Amino acid sequence: MIIVMKAGAAKKDRDEVLRRIRELGYKPHVIHGATRDVIGAVGDERGKAVLQSLESLHGVENVLPILQPYKLASKEVKKESSLVRISDDVVIGGNRVIMMAGPCSVENEQQIIESAIAVKKAGAHVLRGGAFKPRTSPYSFQGLEEEGLKLLAKARELTGLPIVTEVINPETADLVADYADILQIGARNSQNFALLKKVGQIGKPVLLKRGMSMTIQEFLMSAEYIMSEGNQSVILCERGIRTFETATRNTLDLSAVPVLKEKTHLPVVIDPSHGTGNHHYVAPMCFAGVAAGADGLIVEVHPDPEHASSDGPQSLKPKKFEAMMAKLQLFVEAAGRSL
Amino acid sequence: MIIVMKAGAAKKDRDEVLRRIRELGYKPHVIHGATRDVIGAVGDERGKAVLQSLESLHGVENVLPILQPYKLASKEVKKESSLVRISDDVVIGGNRVIMMAGPCSVENEQQIIESAIAVKKAGAHVLRGGAFKPRTSPYSFQGLEEEGLKLLAKARELTGLPIVTEVINPETADLVADYADILQIGARNSQNFALLKKVGQIGKPVLLKRGMSMTIQEFLMSAEYIMSEGNQSVILCERGIRTFETATRNTLDLSAVPVLKEKTHLPVVIDPSHGTGNHHYVAPMCFAGVAAGADGLIVEVHPDPEHASSDGPQSLKPKKFEAMMAKLQLFVEAAGRSL
Amino acid sequence: MIIVMKAGAAKKDRDEVLRRIRELGYKPHVIHGATRDVIGAVGDERGKAVLQSLESLHGVENVLPILQPYKLASKEVKKESSLVRISDDVVIGGNRVIMMAGPCSVENEQQIIESAIAVKKAGAHVLRGGAFKPRTSPYSFQGLEEEGLKLLAKARELTGLPIVTEVINPETADLVADYADILQIGARNSQNFALLKKVGQIGKPVLLKRGMSMTIQEFLMSAEYIMSEGNQSVILCERGIRTFETATRNTLDLSAVPVLKEKTHLPVVIDPSHGTGNHHYVAPMCFAGVAAGADGLIVEVHPDPEHASSDGPQSLKPKKFEAMMAKLQLFVEAAGRSL
Amino acid sequence: MIIVMKAGAAKKDRDEVLRRIRELGYKPHVIHGATRDVIGAVGDERGKAVLQSLESLHGVENVLPILQPYKLASKEVKKESSLVRISDDVVIGGNRVIMMAGPCSVENEQQIIESAIAVKKAGAHVLRGGAFKPRTSPYSFQGLEEEGLKLLAKARELTGLPIVTEVINPETADLVADYADILQIGARNSQNFALLKKVGQIGKPVLLKRGMSMTIQEFLMSAEYIMSEGNQSVILCERGIRTFETATRNTLDLSAVPVLKEKTHLPVVIDPSHGTGNHHYVAPMCFAGVAAGADGLIVEVHPDPEHASSDGPQSLKPKKFEAMMAKLQLFVEAAGRSL
Repeated sequence: MIIVMKAGAAKKDRDEVLRRIRELGYKPHVIHGATRDVIGAVGDERGKAVLQSLESLHGVENVLPILQPYKLASKEVKKESSLVRISDDVVIGGNRVIMMAGPCSVENEQQIIESAIAVKKAGAHVLRGGAFKPRTSPYSFQGLEEEGLKLLAKARELTGLPIVTEVINPETADLVADYADILQIGARNSQNFALLKKVGQIGKPVLLKRGMSMTIQEFLMSAEYIMSEGNQSVILCERGIRTFETATRNTLDLSAVPVLKEKTHLPVVIDPSHGTGNHHYVAPMCFAGVAAGADGLIVEVHPDPEHASSDGPQSLKPKKFEAMMAKLQLFVEAAGRSL
Repeated sequence: MIIVMKAGAAKKDRDEVLRRIRELGYKPHVIHGATRDVIGAVGDERGKAVLQSLESLHGVENVLPILQPYKLASKEVKKESSLVRISDDVVIGGNRVIMMAGPCSVENEQQIIESAIAVKKAGAHVLRGGAFKPRTSPYSFQGLEEEGLKLLAKARELTGLPIVTEVINPETADLVADYADILQIGARNSQNFALLKKVGQIGKPVLLKRGMSMTIQEFLMSAEYIMSEGNQSVILCERGIRTFETATRNTLDLSAVPVLKEKTHLPVVIDPSHGTGNHHYVAPMCFAGVAAGADGLIVEVHPDPEHASSDGPQSLKPKKFEAMMAKLQLFVEAAGRSL
Repeated sequence: MIIVMKAGAAKKDRDEVLRRIRELGYKPHVIHGATRDVIGAVGDERGKAVLQSLESLHGVENVLPILQPYKLASKEVKKESSLVRISDDVVIGGNRVIMMAGPCSVENEQQIIESAIAVKKAGAHVLRGGAFKPRTSPYSFQGLEEEGLKLLAKARELTGLPIVTEVINPETADLVADYADILQIGARNSQNFALLKKVGQIGKPVLLKRGMSMTIQEFLMSAEYIMSEGNQSVILCERGIRTFETATRNTLDLSAVPVLKEKTHLPVVIDPSHGTGNHHYVAPMCFAGVAAGADGLIVEVHPDPEHASSDGPQSLKPKKFEAMMAKLQLFVEAAGRSL
Repeated sequence: MIIVMKAGAAKKDRDEVLRRIRELGYKPHVIHGATRDVIGAVGDERGKAVLQSLESLHGVENVLPILQPYKLASKEVKKESSLVRISDDVVIGGNRVIMMAGPCSVENEQQIIESAIAVKKAGAHVLRGGAFKPRTSPYSFQGLEEEGLKLLAKARELTGLPIVTEVINPETADLVADYADILQIGARNSQNFALLKKVGQIGKPVLLKRGMSMTIQEFLMSAEYIMSEGNQSVILCERGIRTFETATRNTLDLSAVPVLKEKTHLPVVIDPSHGTGNHHYVAPMCFAGVAAGADGLIVEVHPDPEHASSDGPQSLKPKKFEAMMAKLQLFVEAAGRSL
């Protein structure tokens, strides 16, 4: 931490800051500047009592952190990329780009089975589908719940595709974990710390979506919550952040891919369906995601988007998904990877 | 809903849209425009299957909603302002401006008792203090939990001040409700729908904070979640939204007060401590909040901010809080209200 | 400046950083940390070659500035509040709260004269009105140009009100200055540095609007541009920033008032008309602006908003403006000021 | 336009709206809804007096535009992609992906010549370099001005590369046009309408950067300003928007590429240097830009970034640029295009 004193701060204020730095277990180091003093507090800031509170002291202008506050998620701590094993066949974080696809919500048996067969045929590796749905309106379809989980399991049995599905409540997390191969934490629950701890304890792979107004640092702190409970199998998912632009549902932050690749060893997945909210923009954003270095993609595919219970406008029809996968192959190869 | 067709859309596309509008229980009404057709779908959109999915249909450019999607929270449905009864003495939503004050976290008996006595003396009506703390870092102080609730109850016994404290998990919500007079939903849980439903079922007054990137419409939809479970005692709290500006911790959106007053009958409270993140800015933002028409304020006060476990930099010392309350009185009177 | 080295950076990389710091005229000061070195560069950073380029050096993680980059606008350099003299009668920055009011655009003689008389009668001190209009669409009304300036001068002659009007081009700035008492720089030109220099050279008082996505630091840097040309008469105007919220045209950042009051000696004005974009929200935001500590307000008033060439929806009718002024008086008194 | 009446609006209010719609030259069309009336105003809204002012009328809730407000830039008006001819050899908007590269600022003869030779050798088609620099601080290097333009011309002579350089003031625009092949409008001047008109009159190709908080619709309106002066040679450049994220200098909005491709016939270029502000992230964002469908890229390359007068941290060294170009070739081919 760097503590910046006010211009002309009194000596006794500076001495009090030095005393508090030592009290908190750090070694102070003063730099006498042209107009003010700056004090370095030497010691590992991560996982310890924060020095930020010194900002309340008299004569202090502000306090600048030097280290990132995460440890387990940090590339400084673990240099090699993490591989997250989803099933015997499917591992994410290596050379192979993983495609997760399927409908927003599980609606009925025919719909999910048809979707699963279609995305499998087109080359997807994981089936997505929501059974518990976090909806902005209490009057919207809230998902088939356990019935939906059973249908997902049926689809897995039939196609061999592992399944990713959302968990929205610590109370039903174990139930979801009985069926799912990957537990998804949605954007709106990305700082629901009770839920993060719970999936950390369960231990199954977690697909953690970035919150709508979450910085990359906060994103990694949410991953740290899961990891600090003992579960290292975290997959990060960029799904668009909220900005002033309304031409797209969110603004897909693809630069988050190289930033995350620099800061963490965890695999990174892109969700262009929620990122753009419009099926016309999904294919180019899939290509761009792979070009930016993503380890996987998660895409909404629905056999009949016009009748979908949720997210119809951003869902691809199976034919379009298949055509997209063919083109995607070229970009995956350009990236020196396999699909 | 207004369905805008693409320029030159085929007649069969338009006919399919008309068919689907009728299928969903609305009456279509076509306006033939200069370059394209526009179709109105007549019927009450609220609480019914969304027409938004029509955006996936061929020939449709976009779909514009006309009605706000909330009902119970809407001023169209209930015109007079709602009064939320917190205790025998304290009611919010009427002429009296309600002040809630206290430390960010309950840290120990002395701290919370001292705080309670100080804020009561300065004229506060409700004591705030966190026992379950949602912290960005898993390594930060997570609150005293039930022990903290007991200390809050002690402070209430001593001072008569009702207490507002945060609930962060459906599993511990009943426990918190055993102690609290108002259940607070924090900004990070503002779209934790499982938690919203739970506090809706409990039935105690809820202080609902606006999420960091939540539109006012989504804010009212979250209130609607609580109300649709049967609990009408919802207090809305603006606490700053996330923007590009870094001079303040968040950007306090005071224009949300007149906007909310136009759209809903629920009382509105301002939190300038989280809104600005800096104790220097708290007093002017309290004055401005009351001038903008807020029904209450919630302010962090700590006897020793430099040693606070959380949010020290934005906490007022009791002396400063007292001085602020004296000036606030003048603005409350200018607003034609009482404190 | 603080230069943070990468964990495990080589000694030769650190030595190169030290060499470059000295080359740029600063004194380096190394702090050996637990995992990395941190180097302070001692010297006045303001107005000198930036150290930021050191971020490109091998082994450097990032570079943190310590000082604010503005000088003339800074309260550290000039502690007492600046008074900006607009006319013999009107001075802004002192105890008196200054009200500027009038239509968005000057449309014709009757409209501007009627407006001027109405706002004068209601107690305004300055007449606003645009002659050169920066419009988002090339097909929208672009202002009456010099004809509009002449009408403004007529209105001033008749009412004695000094006038504030926008300047949008260095080429026509002198012409505008021939008529105006205050030169307004609009939000879209807030980083049009050629224009800022030009109004700095002209020397008349400038009302500088904050850009839509401008940080407070950048806002003060734009003021610095004007001041560094020798013109110290700068009035800062907060007029709403762009955020994700669409219930208001912009998000009026009232916390900018106490932040600016802490950092600069320049007077601060609030524009609730553009800040909210809706005449219903203008009065509460005027009250809140004064309560937050603003030195003035600028409000759109139009005798016939339904026929206004621009900004009708956010303009007050004279009657409503008069009623607002009566209530405003109470808040001005609560703030210990006069109107 | 769609005019939404308030619930329970009086008949006389509705009649007044109908009268005004007719007065403005549109045909009104009423839809009687369940709770309110909605009125369509039939007629071409583009380039005509705005109906938005009706929002001020009594009984009107809000006014929703149906058409995009731009004409010349719209794909509805001109379906085939526009080709912008920069020189005899270089055309943008066709199959070939155009690379523009060079330093942020022209600093001296050696630097710009060295840069030009290096980027030409690596395969760039256009040389970039600033002679007039819009800098946030008045104390920063402001460019070599005409001397810089002459050096750019020398570099062009030597290498044959056409040059793109920024114009910041209508007064010096003709001077810049004497030297430049493409006139660049920077992000901070993207709504400097006087400057937009000026480059529209000059008629040379314009590289228009998106403003930091500009919606895509406003971006196209700024292009419309240039085009409405008779200059159809506009190249759109996405260079990152301002968001809450601070890990990158801006948030590069790559989804703007497919959105723009859907709405306009103009070519689209990506600037990953300003978009990310960090040379580590430039290569992946170049690849992603091409994968998303961009027609060109503009990249900062500097022979000695540690000594650059501006933007050092985001500039590539020639060696890295060359390596990036080799990889880029693969993504260009995957996109079915040539470099």
